Amino acid sequence: MANAIVGQSGGPTSVINASLAGVFQACQHRGAEHVYGMLHGIQGLLNEKVCDLTQRLSSNIDIELLKRTPSSFLGSCRYKLPAPEEDEAVFEKLFAILKKLDIQWFFYIGGNDSMDTINKLARYGKTIGSSIRFMGVPKTIDNDLMLTDHTPGYGSAAKYIGVVMKEIIRDATAYGNKYVTIVEIMGRNAGWLTAAAALARGEDCEGVNLICLPEIPFHLDRFLAKVETMQKEQNSIVIAVSEGGKLPDGRYVCELSDDAKFVDAFGHRKLTGTARYLSNLVANNLDTLTRSIELSTLQRAAGHLSSRTDITEAYQVGGAAAKAAFEGMTGKMVALRRISNDPYQCTTELVNVADVANLEKKVPVDWINSYRTDMSADFLAYARPLIQA
Amino acid sequence: MANAIVGQSGGPTSVINASLAGVFQACQHRGAEHVYGMLHGIQGLLNEKVCDLTQRLSSNIDIELLKRTPSSFLGSCRYKLPAPEEDEAVFEKLFAILKKLDIQWFFYIGGNDSMDTINKLARYGKTIGSSIRFMGVPKTIDNDLMLTDHTPGYGSAAKYIGVVMKEIIRDATAYGNKYVTIVEIMGRNAGWLTAAAALARGEDCEGVNLICLPEIPFHLDRFLAKVETMQKEQNSIVIAVSEGGKLPDGRYVCELSDDAKFVDAFGHRKLTGTARYLSNLVANNLDTLTRSIELSTLQRAAGHLSSRTDITEAYQVGGAAAKAAFEGMTGKMVALRRISNDPYQCTTELVNVADVANLEKKVPVDWINSYRTDMSADFLAYARPLIQA
Repeated sequence: MANAIVGQSGGPTSVINASLAGVFQACQHRGAEHVYGMLHGIQGLLNEKVCDLTQRLSSNIDIELLKRTPSSFLGSCRYKLPAPEEDEAVFEKLFAILKKLDIQWFFYIGGNDSMDTINKLARYGKTIGSSIRFMGVPKTIDNDLMLTDHTPGYGSAAKYIGVVMKEIIRDATAYGNKYVTIVEIMGRNAGWLTAAAALARGEDCEGVNLICLPEIPFHLDRFLAKVETMQKEQNSIVIAVSEGGKLPDGRYVCELSDDAKFVDAFGHRKLTGTARYLSNLVANNLDTLTRSIELSTLQRAAGHLSSRTDITEAYQVGGAAAKAAFEGMTGKMVALRRISNDPYQCTTELVNVADVANLEKKVPVDWINSYRTDMSADFLAYARPLIQA
Repeated sequence: MANAIVGQSGGPTSVINASLAGVFQACQHRGAEHVYGMLHGIQGLLNEKVCDLTQRLSSNIDIELLKRTPSSFLGSCRYKLPAPEEDEAVFEKLFAILKKLDIQWFFYIGGNDSMDTINKLARYGKTIGSSIRFMGVPKTIDNDLMLTDHTPGYGSAAKYIGVVMKEIIRDATAYGNKYVTIVEIMGRNAGWLTAAAALARGEDCEGVNLICLPEIPFHLDRFLAKVETMQKEQNSIVIAVSEGGKLPDGRYVCELSDDAKFVDAFGHRKLTGTARYLSNLVANNLDTLTRSIELSTLQRAAGHLSSRTDITEAYQVGGAAAKAAFEGMTGKMVALRRISNDPYQCTTELVNVADVANLEKKVPVDWINSYRTDMSADFLAYARPLIQA
């Protein structure tokens, strides 16, 4: 008999625990004696901080609850493994711990950094002749992984964004006066989440007036001119901007704000203050009142607005990863492949984790309209099925 | 035959339209020929901007949808009527418009400013011998109206705050590192909404670590010391602060921030930046990472998290106002009187609008614990029934 281990990494999502449940159940059904969980990812494993999920998830109710619980059940980390060639000692230590735990199947749920971890472990395992199977399970609200139609976590975050944008638009029109609301949405280099603001438009909502993705350089002067023009048509203007909006010279817009000195919990520069900066810019240059709103962590943790499709798919990719590992695959990530939009059908397949690690999938520029103000019908056809139920 | 008119004023809420539906239906049932709606409140009425709700709400489905639609259906305003003694011309104009529309029953849905409007209109009506009945319908997420157990709108906002605080707490613990999250909640002088952060605690959540209401002076040095002490016990600290937190010298905390120069859509100084200021203060003084989150307008517009109890009560106070007006009452507001907490029972009664106008009900200091860090069991017993269903 042998054991499995699973870890979670990177930013929490509403459905990351559904993937954990999928891995856990499939490993149990396929005969893993123990399924261990890394506490705070690979960083915890390096300190031998693991728990025995077989004991902690002893009933079906536990598992059903887990599937519906947002954020990382096991705790997360943002630890980047060195390359095996640079620091073999870390790998020797990790593989010794895995041997001690009698691990045969290793799963890591996360984004492109996590796929880099799987890639390095699988590569190192091969060089030392280890039989451990390493599998990546995709997860990120950012939807920026290559070779997968979309990532579990995105659908729920996109649904949250679509719903709250509707509410913000309705709220902002209540007074009937000139009013510019700028909403800042996560996404450092890829605009998938900001694009989801386009989902607000429908029978019951006129939609946002302008969507600014990091894929398109941000010109402050054109932005002001655009806002002024739009406000000649209607008083209340609602704008969705990415936290990662960049000036033509490559600097982030938020670097112009006075908060730029702060770093976030992971040592990255905090990309916050874009909406606040732009809101102040508009207030100082145009004759209108303004408000800035940051969706902040609310957008990645809103379990109360999870998409059923997203939960189901997150669970499926976990199960598919376990199946593949037990069948002998290693160094792979489970990807989602869309078969059709209407009816929505999606299946799983395996891709090489090396082709996913450290890369970012951007929003295709032809999914942005020609005026660079909104998303195209193609984007809506892509995103709508992901936020259902 | 005679007609009724109804207006909405002040900040939008999730359930203000349920009160509109209650007024409309009760007026129709009691025989009002037309029920008019003021577009953007009394300010719209002064410009004769009204619509005929009898035409716009022609089916039961329209009314059911209206009850579930957040924000102000008729549009809102923040216009303060002068005193009749100061500027009689405005009143002459308003009463001439009401006469032209053949209005017999006048309803205004709003907070303490709106009750001031009703009070002045009723007083002036009396001096000129008008037979028009003026009734106030309470509405504010702030829960700061006197003589009513609570206000429609508060329950849904409190529910939203309880739910998102749970999600923020869970998200903030994911990394396991030292992390202080400061969440800014609405409430200029009364801490009812910030207090609702206490509702996050439960079987599934350890709750927020510190709640700072505007009722208690805010000492920056004690705050820093408290955060430092708390963080010796646990890494992730989540704090709820009111946008209206005040220093011992009476200044708002947010006046220390560099955004203090901006005014909001109604000419009030914008009370925003409290959490951001405190987050920067902690980051600069303690060895921890920080994040600030403003719930902003999300908390008053979150129709997707409305409390059923709140919708029902908002509808009831609208109906009760119509009933009282048709029975000849004027210069009154419908209040909610609680009969019991468990089972929760609440009824309506009439109070003099003059005793409500312009006053603010604060959170009782004995509903704050003795350490000034959290709410008492009495507050929880008060608030829990309001967020149900």
